[in-house]
Amino acid sequence: MVWAFLAVCGPRRYNPPAKFRAKSFMSKPNRPKARLPRGFRDRGAAEIVAEQKMLATIRGVYDSYGFEPLDTPAFEYTDALGKFLPDVDRPNEGVFSLKDDDDQWLSLRYDLTAPLARHVAAHFQNLPKPFRRYQVGSVWRNEKPGPGRFREFTQFDADTVGSASASADAELLMMLSDTLEALGLKRGDYIVKINNRKLLDGVLEASGIALEDRVRRGIVLRAIDKLDRLGVEGVSALLGEGRKDESGDFTKGAGLTPDQAHRILAFVAPDAEDEDAHLRQIGTLVGSSAIGAAGLNELEQIVRLLQACGYGPDRVMFDTGVVRGLDYYTGAVFEAQLTFPVQNEEGEEVVFGSVAGGGRYDDLVARFTGQTVPATGVSIGVSRLMSALATRGVAGVDRSPLIVVTVFDKSEAAASFQIVRELRAAGLRAEAYVGNGKMGDQFKYADKRGAAIAVIEGGDERARGEVTLKDLALGAELAKSVESRSQWVGNREAQRSVKRADLVAEIKTMLSKG
Amino acid sequence: MVWAFLAVCGPRRYNPPAKFRAKSFMSKPNRPKARLPRGFRDRGAAEIVAEQKMLATIRGVYDSYGFEPLDTPAFEYTDALGKFLPDVDRPNEGVFSLKDDDDQWLSLRYDLTAPLARHVAAHFQNLPKPFRRYQVGSVWRNEKPGPGRFREFTQFDADTVGSASASADAELLMMLSDTLEALGLKRGDYIVKINNRKLLDGVLEASGIALEDRVRRGIVLRAIDKLDRLGVEGVSALLGEGRKDESGDFTKGAGLTPDQAHRILAFVAPDAEDEDAHLRQIGTLVGSSAIGAAGLNELEQIVRLLQACGYGPDRVMFDTGVVRGLDYYTGAVFEAQLTFPVQNEEGEEVVFGSVAGGGRYDDLVARFTGQTVPATGVSIGVSRLMSALATRGVAGVDRSPLIVVTVFDKSEAAASFQIVRELRAAGLRAEAYVGNGKMGDQFKYADKRGAAIAVIEGGDERARGEVTLKDLALGAELAKSVESRSQWVGNREAQRSVKRADLVAEIKTMLSKG
Repeated sequence: MVWAFLAVCGPRRYNPPAKFRAKSFMSKPNRPKARLPRGFRDRGAAEIVAEQKMLATIRGVYDSYGFEPLDTPAFEYTDALGKFLPDVDRPNEGVFSLKDDDDQWLSLRYDLTAPLARHVAAHFQNLPKPFRRYQVGSVWRNEKPGPGRFREFTQFDADTVGSASASADAELLMMLSDTLEALGLKRGDYIVKINNRKLLDGVLEASGIALEDRVRRGIVLRAIDKLDRLGVEGVSALLGEGRKDESGDFTKGAGLTPDQAHRILAFVAPDAEDEDAHLRQIGTLVGSSAIGAAGLNELEQIVRLLQACGYGPDRVMFDTGVVRGLDYYTGAVFEAQLTFPVQNEEGEEVVFGSVAGGGRYDDLVARFTGQTVPATGVSIGVSRLMSALATRGVAGVDRSPLIVVTVFDKSEAAASFQIVRELRAAGLRAEAYVGNGKMGDQFKYADKRGAAIAVIEGGDERARGEVTLKDLALGAELAKSVESRSQWVGNREAQRSVKRADLVAEIKTMLSKG
Repeated sequence: MVWAFLAVCGPRRYNPPAKFRAKSFMSKPNRPKARLPRGFRDRGAAEIVAEQKMLATIRGVYDSYGFEPLDTPAFEYTDALGKFLPDVDRPNEGVFSLKDDDDQWLSLRYDLTAPLARHVAAHFQNLPKPFRRYQVGSVWRNEKPGPGRFREFTQFDADTVGSASASADAELLMMLSDTLEALGLKRGDYIVKINNRKLLDGVLEASGIALEDRVRRGIVLRAIDKLDRLGVEGVSALLGEGRKDESGDFTKGAGLTPDQAHRILAFVAPDAEDEDAHLRQIGTLVGSSAIGAAGLNELEQIVRLLQACGYGPDRVMFDTGVVRGLDYYTGAVFEAQLTFPVQNEEGEEVVFGSVAGGGRYDDLVARFTGQTVPATGVSIGVSRLMSALATRGVAGVDRSPLIVVTVFDKSEAAASFQIVRELRAAGLRAEAYVGNGKMGDQFKYADKRGAAIAVIEGGDERARGEVTLKDLALGAELAKSVESRSQWVGNREAQRSVKRADLVAEIKTMLSKG
């Protein structure tokens, strides 16, 4: 019987080895602890229901755009994910990996892009091109967990593979904007920002900084990434000789000349009045750099298409300060930010920030086939966006109120089941009490369940053709204003008798008043 | 650029170590293969959309019964799952396991019941009791894959923890029956069967077979489990001295007397005319066995409650032949079977069989706390049930037809985007072509995407205020009846010009005729 708790109720069961089955934990005082692994969590009804609604909305928009759903498994071969470290002959520590029984390394997917790459490479010939798919699912990161930072979380990705066209990027940006509004965010609550990786390379090149000098280029990129935190002055120092922080620690800079640094700062923190002026300004900054000109051309095409479709800077705007994934993206990069203030953990008012991002990464399939295939994609951080929607009061789902039908006498349980069947047929959420408790326990249960109404049908009532309805919400309200328990117990306002035949109608009336 | 394909589009990115980032796969001819690990699979749009619909229906029924959703993570501590083998100091091979960086073993859940046990044990004081939850999600089995047998699949579980009452079991059976009908199965297409583990123990006891003689009891259980395959005669032999199969191999039997064997066969393959007669017959077979009497009492309570609620033997019936999970369950066991014939892989007509099952397992929490908590649950095998619904023609989802708007001139892409926006606003699924192909490629693309209609707006047409609609379904139909390609290319029946202002109305008319 010891293994009874392991009962797998599904059509397939796992059978532990026989020698193990007969063991009794009762004889072992060393019981396992009921605890979750670090960085993982359980999720309850409110969050699940809200997430279901949110995912359905996103699916609705993506479907309407003609993107097709695709699911890939949790596991991939570690080498197919590009997470196998040949130097040490084992997988990267950042992914959850294990050896299959044929000695090949498997890893849990850490994003939805790498499995897409594998899928596209495997089925390239048969896919419509461009191939536009969306996927929602868990990803796993074997990283140190922190507050709000879990090792399993949900991403919702959409990617277009096989098109180098600005249309493909513009479409994703429009879709992202439409999605945020479909989720209930108002225009002005969010902004989708776009930049192009080639522009910064162009500015670097035009400033006489060799793109091949990866060390210096890396220092420049990290410095720019700190603009929000350190401001123009701090970044300026980091682009030059270096910067001493409050604690006195000195960070060596990129060693650029003041002119070079100024040029880069003019790019990432521009002072142009509108987008057109900004684009002209950048044209000057990239000078004669070929890669810069290519970036500017790509960006202009995307922005023009967006503007022609009515997606102006109130929804999608150009922002050279967006430096996400700069090491990996090959062209356009974008990020959706929420602009309204929220309180952080220290109670400070901050802007909510990024909830989605993406960009163009044109070497998707090449890793497998050697053939470069242009691709662009966007990913929504589902949990983060849901927190944001909750802050805006648009995440919650009004679940149908719950009715708990008590069981006065266990031998008459069928009568209670008959009542819940009628209530369900009327579209209500209803349950008959299936425990062994007495009436007091049953009311406590109904309270704990957050039920709106309890239904009681005693033997006498049944004989009279009546049932009692107890308004639990009103009861709780009244309970606040009564001084003693005896007064509350005597309080009958929240409870009344109705004809059994009128039960459904009476409950609907009560709920509509609530 | 080599790592560009690894771009994580989400708000969190995984950064590979710097030494790894600079490497180029281009210099390595040894590219990874684009392949899936054994026993895993990708899933496409048709299956995903049908599954979404199915899961939404099940959720709807379970919600209406007042069950609450719960999600648990993919990982649990191996010891919390009960899958750690202390003898060899490592996890059971049947589960996917790995060591966390603090040296503790983690495993992927292999069902949804063990995580429920952990959750209940951890939160017991605060949960409403009975605690009724449902959970849907992937489970992983580190087993040898086979045809239709994957190492990752989806289960949909509902369990009631903290009630020993027959009401709890009866509720699950009614809910399972309601669910199958809500999914589109007709009464008669399915049957929910119920048995009780204590009954067989009672028959064994009354036959003078000691329950403590686990070896003999195991032989008896395995023999009964073969009833479908071997028939009464074969099982009878296995209960007695033994049985020689077609290949001449001899399987040693349980060594029961003919009377004992007869008694057991009378239990598992009864000849009673109706359920009442059957229950009386079993009463005789279990004789004075206490455990048998307890099983009979439990079974009677459940069946009476079901009958009083209108769930007669056309939906839920007693069947002593159901022997699922006999080693793990402690009381009621149930199984939903589909009764209609399907063709198996050999083309033979067989009954579809089990799609869901479950039962009572009363030692759920005891493993963690030592405190026995009664529990009962049911699990639906999602993929299997979906295959069954497909066979019945009730699984498919009529997706909104797709409209592909071609792009005649890339500089005019905004015009195509404007058209798809109008179509989407009218509730249609529409996309503008975002690739770089010419018109011929675009039509091929639309065909491959299974689009219903292609929209073409050339420069001349735009000047006239017209667009061309191409009925791709009709086009394909006509193409079948033409003899040569030249004849088909000349065929204009499937294509016509309409006013740009009437576009949405014209498309809706075309679709309604289709």
